[in-house]
Amino acid sequence: MIATDIATRVWNHTFKLDPIVRSLLDTDFYKLLMLQMIHGLHPDVAASFALNNRSRHVRLAEVIDEGELREHLDHTRSLAFTKREMIWLAGNTFYGTRQIFRPKFLEWLEDFRLPEYELRRVDGQFELYFHGPWTHTMMWEIPALAIINELRSRAAMKNFKRFELDVLYARAKAKMWQKVERLQALPDLRISDFGTRRRHSFLWQRWCVEALKEGLGDRLIGSSNVLLAMETDLEAIGTNAHELPMVLAALADSDAELRRAPYDVLKQWQSYYGGNLLIVLPDTYGTSAFLKKAPAWLAEWTGFRPDSAPPIEGGEEIIAWWKKMGEDPREKLLVFSDGMDSDTIERTYRHFEGRVRMSFGWGTNLTNDFRGTAPEPMSGLDPISLVCKVASANGRPAVKLSDNPAKASGEPAAIDRYRRVFGEAAYAERALAV
Amino acid sequence: MIATDIATRVWNHTFKLDPIVRSLLDTDFYKLLMLQMIHGLHPDVAASFALNNRSRHVRLAEVIDEGELREHLDHTRSLAFTKREMIWLAGNTFYGTRQIFRPKFLEWLEDFRLPEYELRRVDGQFELYFHGPWTHTMMWEIPALAIINELRSRAAMKNFKRFELDVLYARAKAKMWQKVERLQALPDLRISDFGTRRRHSFLWQRWCVEALKEGLGDRLIGSSNVLLAMETDLEAIGTNAHELPMVLAALADSDAELRRAPYDVLKQWQSYYGGNLLIVLPDTYGTSAFLKKAPAWLAEWTGFRPDSAPPIEGGEEIIAWWKKMGEDPREKLLVFSDGMDSDTIERTYRHFEGRVRMSFGWGTNLTNDFRGTAPEPMSGLDPISLVCKVASANGRPAVKLSDNPAKASGEPAAIDRYRRVFGEAAYAERALAV
Repeated sequence: MIATDIATRVWNHTFKLDPIVRSLLDTDFYKLLMLQMIHGLHPDVAASFALNNRSRHVRLAEVIDEGELREHLDHTRSLAFTKREMIWLAGNTFYGTRQIFRPKFLEWLEDFRLPEYELRRVDGQFELYFHGPWTHTMMWEIPALAIINELRSRAAMKNFKRFELDVLYARAKAKMWQKVERLQALPDLRISDFGTRRRHSFLWQRWCVEALKEGLGDRLIGSSNVLLAMETDLEAIGTNAHELPMVLAALADSDAELRRAPYDVLKQWQSYYGGNLLIVLPDTYGTSAFLKKAPAWLAEWTGFRPDSAPPIEGGEEIIAWWKKMGEDPREKLLVFSDGMDSDTIERTYRHFEGRVRMSFGWGTNLTNDFRGTAPEPMSGLDPISLVCKVASANGRPAVKLSDNPAKASGEPAAIDRYRRVFGEAAYAERALAV
Repeated sequence: MIATDIATRVWNHTFKLDPIVRSLLDTDFYKLLMLQMIHGLHPDVAASFALNNRSRHVRLAEVIDEGELREHLDHTRSLAFTKREMIWLAGNTFYGTRQIFRPKFLEWLEDFRLPEYELRRVDGQFELYFHGPWTHTMMWEIPALAIINELRSRAAMKNFKRFELDVLYARAKAKMWQKVERLQALPDLRISDFGTRRRHSFLWQRWCVEALKEGLGDRLIGSSNVLLAMETDLEAIGTNAHELPMVLAALADSDAELRRAPYDVLKQWQSYYGGNLLIVLPDTYGTSAFLKKAPAWLAEWTGFRPDSAPPIEGGEEIIAWWKKMGEDPREKLLVFSDGMDSDTIERTYRHFEGRVRMSFGWGTNLTNDFRGTAPEPMSGLDPISLVCKVASANGRPAVKLSDNPAKASGEPAAIDRYRRVFGEAAYAERALAV
């Protein structure tokens, strides 16, 4: 019996587009958490987001066809949250809290569509902007990155023969599982998939999440990808991102207000969320500067997510601050999420074991590590440092300094002003692999 | 669109048996070459074949269900050569010779069926015998071994979850491809799949053959498996095996006749085949003894297949003999086929490069190397040294001495007599990994 399902075969060969993003839930959970707050407190702020390929040597516009990119962006604009997605959002329990999303927000979300985009090719790169209300433009970040990264993977594999693809994925699976086995040695590990934006592809991310679930059991605490969390019966994971302090800082009318912005935004956050969602992201304008002026109530929050300092130094700095504030670090949580891989996870885990609670957000090196898996050496499948950041709010430039000067973003004059207000970076520049 | 072909699904879940052997062509090519000669010259000889598990520590009858084994053996007995298989055998060109199989033999083959078997469990092992005309019992060797080896694999993987199987095969593919890449460094390699009898499974053997085809191109000269050769458009490879001298030796009426048997059988072979099929298998009663008394006309044959001596020492001994006989080894062929793997292939290739023509028959380590691929360490997928040898001819014991004393087979008294006639082994005993 030859088992060809003719309908499937014909369906396949009449494909015009194999969409990379098929659901508005195919995004990071923190986007929805932030969106609810933005929708509630800052509904009238305009924010522009811009794509930035920090791996300049990869000339994206020469690798990816512009027409194809437009097709995918257009397809994503046609998406709305489906009935079952809305029900899942309304009914789910996040971090033990029921119905974290309020009815008013959910009602608004039902009609949500992604806004227009502005795309052009300049000097081998894509310039991609999203202009409009912050409540809408911010939702482009994750799908735009996922689309570009997957189009780049598809381009790299375009001429692969059937067998080469077979070997490629076999090796990638073997490589990935090797990492899982390494992590199995860490008994109290708590880890989560954070790899949506930089993933090789949607299907590959799903495989990786299933691998973690299978290999680590309860030690996998969830996925930042809402769609995958829903489909694979996991907790959706995430808190907040740099765009919150960046927008509030951009809106500040004076240096004094600017200086206060990183704390004001957390106050606002606290009015929306509690418990495990009370995680401080301290590095937007440098962790050291942040801690120096941090108000006492922040020491009561659940934890910190050091996102651009070297994990061990960054963690030690926060632990020292907790101690100074009279807190017991063993009751606090550090979330490590900056370019982690199995070796740095292991080293960080061993370093802090027993001294602080930890969890790890595993991103690019989880969902896009195809280095050395292709039949012939090639760089087209190596991950790149591609971001989509808020560039301005109500027309004023948005700035990020970060603990790693290589991650600073914003106009030079604005960066200079922020450095004057917040101080110079306390950590040395480190190369951005991913 | 959910692409489930309902008919396929129902077909799958109503399976009673997923047959391991589905065609009488799923055997080694040399069996058919030998069979034509046996059918022509020794149609009335009775020969018994017996299974022998040299890896005694693996208690096969405790791993494999006897009922299941019987079902597979019975299924194989129900097979006949199909019309298209007969046409392929009749029409194909082997080693450049058209229609190597004669019409009279093909006519006889059309009605061929495998004879009965005798199976019992003794002390944790299977005793499996095939009694009857040599022309029929000899055809059981390959399918019987393939069935038992695959049933053992299936048993080992019985409780694997879907994901564990996925990782297992991904790792096996990655491991296999690593070997292919290593072999790609050998520009004049000539290699062939010899892995039917010890394969992990039929589908895995097919994947391995496709991998070699893909990775080595023309350097893959073919497969010993006739069905795979037919299906994947390759040359069927093989010449002759130990059973020929073993049966003729068993039938010898005197020590003088016994001493002559290994040469007589090659004379018979020469009356049937020429060119690339003129390959001497010298080790049945020790290569050194064989060469000492070998007639001059054997030096004109195309090559030798040293099958139980260490490859380099064995090859050197044969090269020295060719030189002594006035032949230029660079025009001769050595076929290496004893437990080879990518490292020994490479070493042997480098050693003899430019001094002799070489080809490699890659068996167990090609089609059954799952060592280190299972999620948890286990031995159930490690290959074992399982053989099915001719045990007697016309009621007289059949004996093999081999260059490796660990491979000797036959009744102790008969082995003693053969050692008296042919001399002691010239090579030290080596452990049988596979």
